[in-house]
Amino acid sequence: MKNKMMFLLGVFIFLSIFTGYAAGPKYIFYFIGDGMGFNHIEATRQYCQSQNDGNIKNSLVFLQFPVQSVVTTFSATNRVTDSAAAATALATGTKTYNGAIGLDVDKKPLESVAKKLKKEGMKVGILTSVSVDHATPAGFYANQPNRNMGYEIGIQAAESEFDFFAGSAFTKPINKKDPNDKNVYTALADNGYVVCRGEEEYNRNRDTKKKMVLLSADSLMIDALPYMIDRKPGDTALPFFTAACIEQLSKDNKKGFFMMVEGGEIDWAAHANDGATVVNEVIDFGQAIQVAYEFYKKHPKETLIVITADHETGGCILGNGTMDVNTEYFANQKMSGKNLSAYLKEVKKNNPNISWDEMKQILSAETGLWKTIPVTLKEEAKLMTVFDEMFHGNSKDVRSLYASIDALATQVVALVNKKAHVSWASGNHSASQVPLFAIGVGSDKFSRRLDNTDIPKIILQLKGLK
Amino acid sequence: MKNKMMFLLGVFIFLSIFTGYAAGPKYIFYFIGDGMGFNHIEATRQYCQSQNDGNIKNSLVFLQFPVQSVVTTFSATNRVTDSAAAATALATGTKTYNGAIGLDVDKKPLESVAKKLKKEGMKVGILTSVSVDHATPAGFYANQPNRNMGYEIGIQAAESEFDFFAGSAFTKPINKKDPNDKNVYTALADNGYVVCRGEEEYNRNRDTKKKMVLLSADSLMIDALPYMIDRKPGDTALPFFTAACIEQLSKDNKKGFFMMVEGGEIDWAAHANDGATVVNEVIDFGQAIQVAYEFYKKHPKETLIVITADHETGGCILGNGTMDVNTEYFANQKMSGKNLSAYLKEVKKNNPNISWDEMKQILSAETGLWKTIPVTLKEEAKLMTVFDEMFHGNSKDVRSLYASIDALATQVVALVNKKAHVSWASGNHSASQVPLFAIGVGSDKFSRRLDNTDIPKIILQLKGLK
Repeated sequence: MKNKMMFLLGVFIFLSIFTGYAAGPKYIFYFIGDGMGFNHIEATRQYCQSQNDGNIKNSLVFLQFPVQSVVTTFSATNRVTDSAAAATALATGTKTYNGAIGLDVDKKPLESVAKKLKKEGMKVGILTSVSVDHATPAGFYANQPNRNMGYEIGIQAAESEFDFFAGSAFTKPINKKDPNDKNVYTALADNGYVVCRGEEEYNRNRDTKKKMVLLSADSLMIDALPYMIDRKPGDTALPFFTAACIEQLSKDNKKGFFMMVEGGEIDWAAHANDGATVVNEVIDFGQAIQVAYEFYKKHPKETLIVITADHETGGCILGNGTMDVNTEYFANQKMSGKNLSAYLKEVKKNNPNISWDEMKQILSAETGLWKTIPVTLKEEAKLMTVFDEMFHGNSKDVRSLYASIDALATQVVALVNKKAHVSWASGNHSASQVPLFAIGVGSDKFSRRLDNTDIPKIILQLKGLK
Repeated sequence: MKNKMMFLLGVFIFLSIFTGYAAGPKYIFYFIGDGMGFNHIEATRQYCQSQNDGNIKNSLVFLQFPVQSVVTTFSATNRVTDSAAAATALATGTKTYNGAIGLDVDKKPLESVAKKLKKEGMKVGILTSVSVDHATPAGFYANQPNRNMGYEIGIQAAESEFDFFAGSAFTKPINKKDPNDKNVYTALADNGYVVCRGEEEYNRNRDTKKKMVLLSADSLMIDALPYMIDRKPGDTALPFFTAACIEQLSKDNKKGFFMMVEGGEIDWAAHANDGATVVNEVIDFGQAIQVAYEFYKKHPKETLIVITADHETGGCILGNGTMDVNTEYFANQKMSGKNLSAYLKEVKKNNPNISWDEMKQILSAETGLWKTIPVTLKEEAKLMTVFDEMFHGNSKDVRSLYASIDALATQVVALVNKKAHVSWASGNHSASQVPLFAIGVGSDKFSRRLDNTDIPKIILQLKGLK
């Protein structure tokens, strides 16, 4: 009796494995929050909890996913990785040097999980809120010795045969070394892609049988989509990209799809140590994940969603000396530090003799300082000095990796963060481990301490590939 | 056929649950690294990897445990918890106000997992590298409105009927309000405890049939055991406490045991932003876990080991602006900032006219600055200024929560950390989530996003209790 039971159990387990894992997930979503550390998410969780807006309150569905792990991110050359080496690790399962796109330390090309799945007949979409040729998306389709080779990367997108790309734009469509070379957009057209800018153009082309490249509606937004905190009606956003990609890849699709979706501007806002903008970007990323989760709910037995980050940016810590963290203060900040800086420069041009009291009115309206967030006299005195230097002296912009922000806007954002008790170690990445969340077919395979190189390997194993 | 198989499978699952989980783990180890965040561990992992000493290289066996989760730590009153509210949450499963020991927000007493398991006949040991009456151990046996009530907490230890306590000492053995009240040590004796100081006394008493309190060999070490980095031959340490407790609780033991082991000085070193001392404390804690793991290997089907932290201390970040992290620099630091300060005060007393060059020799020998760790002229100039103020001026000590360190030692330790690219947000706790590691019977139940209050609840569920 016991033997028979054990035999039947063996058969049952064998059948489970055979029918379940051999096929693997038909639909795979691979979300990468660029620079998204544990504390970026925890700040966002606290913030969302403090808001009454139902849309925002429920933006972090992934925190409820059954699998939550911890991932190491170091590169082959540095304990602190850059986005290129991290993208290569996350896409190909191989550690490489900082700066490399899809090449190993010996500069030999590596084949990404996206390329391998494409060969198996799955459709592939590569989406980002920054440019299509940026390091993270590039890791999934390009092989270049340097992440800055935007033209060569763009050409490799055009030649990839992937089914869908989305991002703000291509940053280097022209080969500056040889301007007679084919423009990236021409190469895309020649390789059978229809290029749409924004939702209206997408709607006109949604029934196309071609491969698609979907870009920002605003053709001036080349480097990245507008930050969510700065978004205006008609602006293009990551959740829309995600929904459009699902729609396109679902056409005539028997073998399923693989989608990589990058929240690229979490990193940019963190490089600028701009907490309110970070929190909004994590919400936007969470809403893109929500779109995938709605798909998952319709196909729970065929779908896998994996969410992770390439590295932590900024060395973000909640708590800077007291027992309080006031992340709800971020609700008062109405624009990114980047846009605040543009606004203040406009003010300086149009009203160079503006008084400190008038400036205080502006800063208060845009950030909540004085109005909702108490400011000490010492803190105000510091802002006054910086204001004086900027408007009547010669102060220089403060440069972070992706922005150049005037000294006053920089100080104002720093003060909002300080009052929220959010601390930043630097304007660069850190060696912190990053979170991973997963749900769906095979998600339990991610339930252990992971290195970033493990993730594409597990996805391939689930599909019975190497 | 299929129905029969399903029926048999059901029977099998039922029997598995009944025979496995109903009994639950017979031996439970609950390790709490006070203040031990992800980056304290990651720094230690990097450091251990860089060392050739086999003992050190293999100190973090828990990183290989199959379950690794993430735990939120906020208290009922603050996003940043203190150790008392955290201990209460970890011991009783109930959030409370910062400062409370085993009481809820309405100051009603709560029963800890240790007390509940004691009632079931399990033996109980409470161990720490700081004083027995400190917040974390107290949360498992005491109920007091304020963590500073050391006398009342000590009396509750004596009256707990727990089988084993270990720590540096009791900090407030006398009731200052009423000095005629019973001394804590008298209360311990009256309640049937034998008190041993250090390994020799322990060896003389190891065959006792009494309950035991095991304290530091050095009776001057009242607040805490010596830091591992400062340890001298004969000093008492946490791995010894752990081995002794296993030995004592294994006597005539039919119903198993529950042990809470706190690495209490990880927190203290982190409050002082002293990275080398933190790394050594995590190694010491890891070696205590190794003792439990050796026990686990002998009783794998009866043992559960859970490791977590009560909160993160210091806002520790690896990476402070570049792509490098040089945690191996910590190998050059020969003593804690606390002991370096005592040493420099001694130098000041005995050799007040010491030159900067002579001082540089001392600092170089004790920390590796100049010798192994390159120092810029600007950095040296800053140290010279602080040296000048300390030896020829009136500089004050820098106070952190558990130490008062002179300005020069403070600057020297800060420089070692800066050169190692280890950054600290503050001298206080942060709201960061903390890691959990687990192995053994029921460990899979911890494999999800957890709140600190979930942990004692899961342990009780595994024992079929509430």
